[in-house]
Amino acid sequence: MTSEAQEFRQIALRAREAAYLLRRLTRKDKDEALLRMADALVANTAQITSANAGDVERARESGTSDAIVDRLTLTADRIAGIADALRAVIGLPDPVGEVIRGYTLPNGLQVRQVRVPLGVVGMIYEARPNVTVDAAGLCLKSGNAALLRGSSSARESNAALVKVMRDALEQAGVTADAIQLVPGESHESVNHLMKARGLVDVLIPRGGESLIRNVVDNSTVPVIETGVGNCHVYIDKDADVEMAVRILLNSKSQRVSVCNAAETVLVHRDIADAFLPRALDALAAAGVTVHADERFVLKATGSPASVVPVTDEDWGAEYYSLDIAAGIVDTIDDAITHIRRWSSGHTEAIVSDSQSAIAEFTAAIDSAAIMVNASTRFTDGGEFGFGAEIGISTQKLHARGPMALPELTTTTYVVTGEGHVRG
Amino acid sequence: MTSEAQEFRQIALRAREAAYLLRRLTRKDKDEALLRMADALVANTAQITSANAGDVERARESGTSDAIVDRLTLTADRIAGIADALRAVIGLPDPVGEVIRGYTLPNGLQVRQVRVPLGVVGMIYEARPNVTVDAAGLCLKSGNAALLRGSSSARESNAALVKVMRDALEQAGVTADAIQLVPGESHESVNHLMKARGLVDVLIPRGGESLIRNVVDNSTVPVIETGVGNCHVYIDKDADVEMAVRILLNSKSQRVSVCNAAETVLVHRDIADAFLPRALDALAAAGVTVHADERFVLKATGSPASVVPVTDEDWGAEYYSLDIAAGIVDTIDDAITHIRRWSSGHTEAIVSDSQSAIAEFTAAIDSAAIMVNASTRFTDGGEFGFGAEIGISTQKLHARGPMALPELTTTTYVVTGEGHVRG
Repeated sequence: MTSEAQEFRQIALRAREAAYLLRRLTRKDKDEALLRMADALVANTAQITSANAGDVERARESGTSDAIVDRLTLTADRIAGIADALRAVIGLPDPVGEVIRGYTLPNGLQVRQVRVPLGVVGMIYEARPNVTVDAAGLCLKSGNAALLRGSSSARESNAALVKVMRDALEQAGVTADAIQLVPGESHESVNHLMKARGLVDVLIPRGGESLIRNVVDNSTVPVIETGVGNCHVYIDKDADVEMAVRILLNSKSQRVSVCNAAETVLVHRDIADAFLPRALDALAAAGVTVHADERFVLKATGSPASVVPVTDEDWGAEYYSLDIAAGIVDTIDDAITHIRRWSSGHTEAIVSDSQSAIAEFTAAIDSAAIMVNASTRFTDGGEFGFGAEIGISTQKLHARGPMALPELTTTTYVVTGEGHVRG
Repeated sequence: MTSEAQEFRQIALRAREAAYLLRRLTRKDKDEALLRMADALVANTAQITSANAGDVERARESGTSDAIVDRLTLTADRIAGIADALRAVIGLPDPVGEVIRGYTLPNGLQVRQVRVPLGVVGMIYEARPNVTVDAAGLCLKSGNAALLRGSSSARESNAALVKVMRDALEQAGVTADAIQLVPGESHESVNHLMKARGLVDVLIPRGGESLIRNVVDNSTVPVIETGVGNCHVYIDKDADVEMAVRILLNSKSQRVSVCNAAETVLVHRDIADAFLPRALDALAAAGVTVHADERFVLKATGSPASVVPVTDEDWGAEYYSLDIAAGIVDTIDDAITHIRRWSSGHTEAIVSDSQSAIAEFTAAIDSAAIMVNASTRFTDGGEFGFGAEIGISTQKLHARGPMALPELTTTTYVVTGEGHVRG
């Protein structure tokens, strides 16, 4: 074992011991610790921004784009916002101990299925240091120990944030090992996390497609796949045109750098003549480039929008930009077939006033979320009323769609008898 | 790609197409198909027992133990029993379409979390051909396509059973590709299943530890780990002695070849003098060999039981036999520490009349099931009232403990608006 591997093992073992303590904390214990953590982040703003300045300087020196430098940057306001997000977790119900099924069998045995923490949760994520605090807070509230492996580009910021939170935990009488950074700059340190089956109970990667693909392909620890969103909006022949334009525009352009933004629009041929002129005007005004199939291109002649021919790469792309793939379909079945072929299973929307079309779409589409006459942008833990979000699962096991506190738990069956034996 | 790999891919693609049809079948469609399958199994008893005779003969020739030959053997009575199990599935509620959360947000959006099938379920299992029918029936009822990879020792039996079921599906107007055998004798065919991420939605291995370990370590398809059970019974100082003896005996010896049988008993020192003589008499009468620690051995002097020194291998063993590891502990904490060290996370039991001891045990133990004053043998889908069981999960993600129809589903959020967009 390399010394880095040994160091990781020690950290993981400490996380397991911490998890054993955390599973028995009361909600009051955990909420008090969260409050101390939030207060400490604000009180140590100068220390955190100073550490962050080092990361920002290194990022600038290595030619990082302004957008990413902005995501990396922590200001006093942003730290106050991160602390407020922690305080919001205090108000959320504690999922641990919730009885999700409970009944008495004919033989008198009482069966209860009770939520318990997962144990040790590993997070692998990219630039934004706020994830360090969000993940630590949600893990603590759900009784889990957090092993955090952020981006090396944010290492000084993350180290400062974790130090402040660990000190606050100790002051609250909670083991500081509830929150630990995975050390090491190299990809080796990600490997340690991925191969720590038996020590780490679940890995949640958050970030770009290559990060997630690497974790999914190589982890022996169970993974919750998150976030890649190639989302579709289908405009049915029975759509309200004004509503359809509004939903398409919001889905595509309200915020482009997010997984629940739309990347493709499919338009029923019977509504194309009514819908396209207004949709193209709106997309043009928002600065969206349309990557369109032949029939769509023909209909777009004379429009102010930037329209270019679509390729298979476009159909498969998560643009994260003011681009959208677009096509005309003959039937709702053709739209469904297209979505089955290209969707990443995140969110698809239908705009229609037809009950039968809505029923067909919702029955056929196999995605984490289906929006009926609403923007794809609503697939979000906050928008769903969860009060928090640790990621959006695009896989089918354990959790699918926005994940918050209950999704960070598993269950135990507690069966109570009076000397019952099997005959 | 080898020709076997190509053949597997074709089969998996057909399973995906079948899954797309199955997810939209009504309960009535599925129940009618199940009834036809059950009737067809009985009607084709001669054909099935004849195929099975070939497997049995090969097993005998290769020197397979009588116990395993017995598990492999199909008789008319056993086939009738397998058909009855299928008919029982007809009576179970259809999990698909169940709304498990539903609410309206302040902005008027209606959120519903709805159960949908997982899609394609792969099963890898060992000798017993009844698993072929059980798995096929539960997958069909939950709207999933089944890819079955049984033991090569049961290949003729499995081929006959699957042929009968596929013919029955066709007669019921359901795609026969809902149920397919994975071809190939070699371990290569298991590898194809394990690497079919994107085509297969979940793999459920059922069998011995090495089979399960291989799948867990090598699969890129999400796995539900099942069944390894190193179960413990803790006899607290406040236990009712007669109840404790009864529960221990039932947990160990009511059936030894199952994952929910007890493999270790831990006895609080304060009850050892009252408990051990009666427990050892009962274990001796049942023919159980006790692998005991030093303090236990001293107390067992003069007992009729077969008592031998315990090793670390014993503490870790899932015996599947009339053997049990045994120790005396000073405190309930010592019992918990021992269980944390050695348990496989399946089922642990406490026998106690102390509310505080029961609370401590249930809070500290991190297993799929905890039995309070009841036998470990109750961890079972049938005993829990689920009406069926596709396996017992010992992992924390997705499902933990006995799994039946709801555990073969995932969910989709269906969000309905009236033109809602994000501001």
